[in-house]
Amino acid sequence: MNLLDVKRVLIGEPFPSSMEMHERLDKVRALAIFASDPISSNAYATEAIMSVLIVLGSGALALTFPVGLAVASLVLLVIFSYIQTILHYPDGGGAYTVAKDNLGTTASLFAAAALLTDYVLTVSVSTSAGVRAITSAFPQMFPFRVEIAILAIILITWVNLRGVRESGTIFAVPTYAFIGGVLVVIIVGLVRYFGIFGAMPIEITDVVIPAQTSATGFLYVWIILRAFAGGCTALTGIEAISNGVRAFRSPESKNAAITMVAMGVTAMSLFVGILFLSTHIGLIPNETESILSQMTRRIAGTNFLYYWVQFFTAMILFLAANTGYQDFPRLSSFLAEDSFLPRWLQNRGDRLVYSSGIVALAIISSVIVIVFQADEIAMLPLYALGVMLSFSLSQFGMFRLMGKIAHLKPGESIHTKVTQIHYEKHVQWKRIVNALGALTTLIVFLVLLSTKFTDGAWIIAIAIPIIIAAFSSIHRHYGRVAAALSTVGLTDESLNEIADVVIVPIADIHRGTLLALKYAKRISKNVRAITVATSPEMKDRFMTRWNRFPQITTGIDLLLIEYDFRDILIPLVDYIEHVNTVEFCDKITTVVVPEFIPEMKSARFLHNQTANRLRACLMDHKDIVVIEVPFHIDSQLEKIACEVELEEVVEDYVELQDDTPIAPTDDSASQDE
Amino acid sequence: MNLLDVKRVLIGEPFPSSMEMHERLDKVRALAIFASDPISSNAYATEAIMSVLIVLGSGALALTFPVGLAVASLVLLVIFSYIQTILHYPDGGGAYTVAKDNLGTTASLFAAAALLTDYVLTVSVSTSAGVRAITSAFPQMFPFRVEIAILAIILITWVNLRGVRESGTIFAVPTYAFIGGVLVVIIVGLVRYFGIFGAMPIEITDVVIPAQTSATGFLYVWIILRAFAGGCTALTGIEAISNGVRAFRSPESKNAAITMVAMGVTAMSLFVGILFLSTHIGLIPNETESILSQMTRRIAGTNFLYYWVQFFTAMILFLAANTGYQDFPRLSSFLAEDSFLPRWLQNRGDRLVYSSGIVALAIISSVIVIVFQADEIAMLPLYALGVMLSFSLSQFGMFRLMGKIAHLKPGESIHTKVTQIHYEKHVQWKRIVNALGALTTLIVFLVLLSTKFTDGAWIIAIAIPIIIAAFSSIHRHYGRVAAALSTVGLTDESLNEIADVVIVPIADIHRGTLLALKYAKRISKNVRAITVATSPEMKDRFMTRWNRFPQITTGIDLLLIEYDFRDILIPLVDYIEHVNTVEFCDKITTVVVPEFIPEMKSARFLHNQTANRLRACLMDHKDIVVIEVPFHIDSQLEKIACEVELEEVVEDYVELQDDTPIAPTDDSASQDE
Repeated sequence: MNLLDVKRVLIGEPFPSSMEMHERLDKVRALAIFASDPISSNAYATEAIMSVLIVLGSGALALTFPVGLAVASLVLLVIFSYIQTILHYPDGGGAYTVAKDNLGTTASLFAAAALLTDYVLTVSVSTSAGVRAITSAFPQMFPFRVEIAILAIILITWVNLRGVRESGTIFAVPTYAFIGGVLVVIIVGLVRYFGIFGAMPIEITDVVIPAQTSATGFLYVWIILRAFAGGCTALTGIEAISNGVRAFRSPESKNAAITMVAMGVTAMSLFVGILFLSTHIGLIPNETESILSQMTRRIAGTNFLYYWVQFFTAMILFLAANTGYQDFPRLSSFLAEDSFLPRWLQNRGDRLVYSSGIVALAIISSVIVIVFQADEIAMLPLYALGVMLSFSLSQFGMFRLMGKIAHLKPGESIHTKVTQIHYEKHVQWKRIVNALGALTTLIVFLVLLSTKFTDGAWIIAIAIPIIIAAFSSIHRHYGRVAAALSTVGLTDESLNEIADVVIVPIADIHRGTLLALKYAKRISKNVRAITVATSPEMKDRFMTRWNRFPQITTGIDLLLIEYDFRDILIPLVDYIEHVNTVEFCDKITTVVVPEFIPEMKSARFLHNQTANRLRACLMDHKDIVVIEVPFHIDSQLEKIACEVELEEVVEDYVELQDDTPIAPTDDSASQDE
Repeated sequence: MNLLDVKRVLIGEPFPSSMEMHERLDKVRALAIFASDPISSNAYATEAIMSVLIVLGSGALALTFPVGLAVASLVLLVIFSYIQTILHYPDGGGAYTVAKDNLGTTASLFAAAALLTDYVLTVSVSTSAGVRAITSAFPQMFPFRVEIAILAIILITWVNLRGVRESGTIFAVPTYAFIGGVLVVIIVGLVRYFGIFGAMPIEITDVVIPAQTSATGFLYVWIILRAFAGGCTALTGIEAISNGVRAFRSPESKNAAITMVAMGVTAMSLFVGILFLSTHIGLIPNETESILSQMTRRIAGTNFLYYWVQFFTAMILFLAANTGYQDFPRLSSFLAEDSFLPRWLQNRGDRLVYSSGIVALAIISSVIVIVFQADEIAMLPLYALGVMLSFSLSQFGMFRLMGKIAHLKPGESIHTKVTQIHYEKHVQWKRIVNALGALTTLIVFLVLLSTKFTDGAWIIAIAIPIIIAAFSSIHRHYGRVAAALSTVGLTDESLNEIADVVIVPIADIHRGTLLALKYAKRISKNVRAITVATSPEMKDRFMTRWNRFPQITTGIDLLLIEYDFRDILIPLVDYIEHVNTVEFCDKITTVVVPEFIPEMKSARFLHNQTANRLRACLMDHKDIVVIEVPFHIDSQLEKIACEVELEEVVEDYVELQDDTPIAPTDDSASQDE
């Protein structure tokens, strides 16, 4: 079973290109696909707020609720703003596209870099949080959380490399099961909390944790801001629908917008419910059990409902990680198409997915999981930063677009680079919403950057400029290549002439070198064999053997260089350079090198050292074509039907020696072997 | 400053081959060179005995003296036996040569494998012991012993890569300084011990260390045997003179034999002196201070003489390590010449030394130093094993040779493979000495193997068969290569014919691919361009561009394959295989591949993926020559004097796009880039 077979078993048979699927989703399944990321944020968003406020003591945890409400308001504002994007970019309007269309290349690269970090962290954060849902239910698995998270990433990677088909239905189950489960918990919790229907009241703990700091004034505000910034992870993933408008059934934009609203309402209902209950029943964040797990356990007991919620929390989080696998490779391919990333990121693999992007994503997100020991709360400062930057850029782009629309007269419509815009009413109001969204997310971005800088946000602050520099340098490189390859004004003369000369460096005369000489004679009338003799004996020996094969050597110029050093590459390269730059200036010179192909690849280290070095040397020279004429040892042995056994070889050694290069007189032995 | 300049500064200018030096040594300098290894064994041999006996308690340390005397007797026996080798192999008679000449290939390979491990361990043990001499004097450096040892190896490697010249004089100073210093210490010690001239008596300690085991009977004998085996490290290096007879002034053999005797007497005088004093003044081995250091400190105090002895102990040990650098590369080159090791080990570097062997030795011995944490006492079980095996084989070889001599009549002389032997007298007596030496060292070898097996000797017991298997497999490989390359019975017809066909796989039409097509037309009349279209748009686009350059494409057959998958390599390789095996069976088929050479090597990952994969694929096919026609991006850009700035590229991007492959319609972009 070779590597290709292994690949077939793991990945499956290749799909033909024509099989590319254009599945259209109804709203129910679309909600399940696109909402897994934002809805799953509920697994950690409340915790992210509380884990900041706890430094002010358990008393301050009551602030979680108002801070959470502020986050929820921001979510609704951003959702409203994104509905505009959906309506105006029916072919998909990710932050990169919108920024490119309205704000220019630089802004679009910022958006792209921010999104790439965002997608990577979607995978790292969601799998880590999914693992936390598992280890909350089974604390004995806590020590293996990194291994479980990596395993989850490998599984998701594998599924994606196989290509996800019929994804809508599969996604629908855990998403709705999670929503349903958490809703039941919240309703039971509210019923018990308010004592409706005479329900048994929930045990409300009153553990007092003293404040680690007696914060007042500025420091107090600072901590509230940090908590708010932490809660903003609830916003992650809400832009997903704007990328996928084309996946909706007709009318695409309208259906997408309705789904967006439904997603916002669902996600925020759960968020506010969890916020209310977890603060009012006195939960304290701790490292090994999540707030959602604590809350469910307290309200419903450790029973079927508890395991249902924990199981589907893990599932929806793994599905959320999966959205990173949709977005990252697609954005990479857009960037590769615009030549900001290596072009092979555009290539679809056997299963019609962007395999290189998938593998790259898996590697980077695994590294982050390992570095942060699968602690998603520690990763969140990195996560929200990229999200907010891309939100802000996207909404500024929409603000610009709305400005263009505002100039249109009724009935008029124009094309931007990417989409078509028409006259519409109330455009100034929409424009204000976009501006508000852009400004708010920009402020949140700055708050995050300042409050979370030392917690890890600095990593993103460094990574984004580096990524942009890489984009630019790759783009510049492809630009230069394009200019060099351009056929504008090309005439036959402007391509290099090919000199009628072939140089064949050889160290000895044997079947391999004779074949190379024969090949050289076939392709040129001016063949020059060149050999370097490091001792007089070597010279004599070479000449004797040269003269033994006149049927091949006749018509070939022989240049024998006597050389008193051992690095025979130096005179060889000197001569080839001379021919290439002086004798045939500006023409292409051909060098034929005999090359051994041993039976086993592992045996290559026994041969070809000089040939490899020569090729590496000449590769940097311009206008030189190196032709390696392969000599396959095993096929030759088959041909002469000679199954040489070790014993025979040892015995025959002395006889063979005289006629073979096995033990040449000097160290130049490696010249052509 | 490029890599070559760095090499020049570090290694020096290359020496011409004719400069090879044949320095002849007088006996005084020869003793210094060849004796550094055996004489330096005094730094650890006594310790090696005592560190075994200590398990029987401090009382048993008195046994060190008789055990050491047994070792000294063995040394004298082996020296006597080796004098015969020197007299009969004046061109150098290492164990490999003697075994090859008298015992056959298999025995010679055992000797060679044993010697290679011996030489490697000479370096590891000697540098580690040298470092112990330093850290005994300066205990605060003990934690850095591994680093110091590696530094010493790097320095010795560097000196050897530069090529050691005038080595005799340099070696003479530390060797004689060490001998002199230790002799003074021994004499002072004896004078004080026996109270001669009324000298102040030495403080004799009486620390009682209880036995770790109450050994009796077999176990007691076992421990004595282990101690004897440990002491046998004193024998290491005494064969060195037999390798280097040619370095002596005339009469070479006689001078070498005299030097050998002088070496034996000197080394054993020091050994017995140290043995006597260290046991009679009650020294206890400990990990941080060597026995020699303790003894010197006790006898002479921590004064000038102490530092003198410690300094020159370190120096002579580093010189002993240096002998490994002489022997290992030389033996490797012999083995390479006999095609038991990669042939390039025969190549002399710029400074006329076997550079590859030197570097290999440095790496292997450094690994051992790191693994054993520079603890030479722990390495000794590995060390002595290889030494004893090679001694034994060498002396069995001499025993055989003496048998041949015994058959000669007076005045008669015959040639063996390697040397010339004459009738001589008393040959049976000499033969008995050789047999005795061979048997004794064989017994010691078996004792070492059994007593030290679990202490690390198993490593050598495993390594030697593995090394021999590697020798055989390399030899077999070269034998097959020799058979395949042999020109016996070669006629012009028996070399493959070259088919008049050139296949050029291309993905797009640009300067790079047009140059490749032009090159192909130059070398053949039957040129076939082959392209794979994965979409109808791609096909149309290709045809338009193909038809735009009739001056080049005329006369070329175009094969356009429509393919509904994305791995375009598959149809390309299929077609090439078809042409090679069906259309031109048994002939050589040529494939021309356009190749980009970007400005920077680091940019290669942006290009050439498909070209590299194609080359790798075709390499395993027989009778296919792959020609890469390089297209240097930077030289082309110079030519069109186009200094593209990033800004311009970004702006010009849309215009360029239409005429360049920068953004081809599909993923086949990488085919020829």
